[in-house]
Amino acid sequence: MQRVSVKLDDSGHLAAIGATVRARRQEFGVSQEALAHATGIDRSHMGRIERGERNLSILNLIRIADALDISPSRLLKAAGL
Amino acid sequence: MQRVSVKLDDSGHLAAIGATVRARRQEFGVSQEALAHATGIDRSHMGRIERGERNLSILNLIRIADALDISPSRLLKAAGL
Repeated sequence: MQRVSVKLDDSGHLAAIGATVRARRQEFGVSQEALAHATGIDRSHMGRIERGERNLSILNLIRIADALDISPSRLLKAAGL
Repeated sequence: MQRVSVKLDDSGHLAAIGATVRARRQEFGVSQEALAHATGIDRSHMGRIERGERNLSILNLIRIADALDISPSRLLKAAGL
């Protein structure tokens, strides 16, 4: 098993996830502040997640997905993962 | 939008993801050491991930999924997420 080379670089993955969260949130008509409050994630941290600047944790991904009424796996799939 | 209460508690999510990674790895006939090497994740950290003791990052989830030839979304789905 040779070492995995990340096909799409890390920042590409994070940008895709952030854009997917933002699109879903806007589709939902929810402000970034409301999503931050609903998930217990700091608002500025949420902004960085949406801009693809944060390697978010699985539990934060699950909280965000829950708040946006989508399964975590569907959210990742929508991000092309 | 009221505050999200995590339906299955956090440790339940992490345990499910860890068990799914372990099952897939064993299905693949790969040692924990080989998976750690392939993903660049420290072996003891990989052990804790499999035991559900670590809130792993998205990028580590993606690396593990890549190394086990499954999409990150399918891996989460197999973990019931």
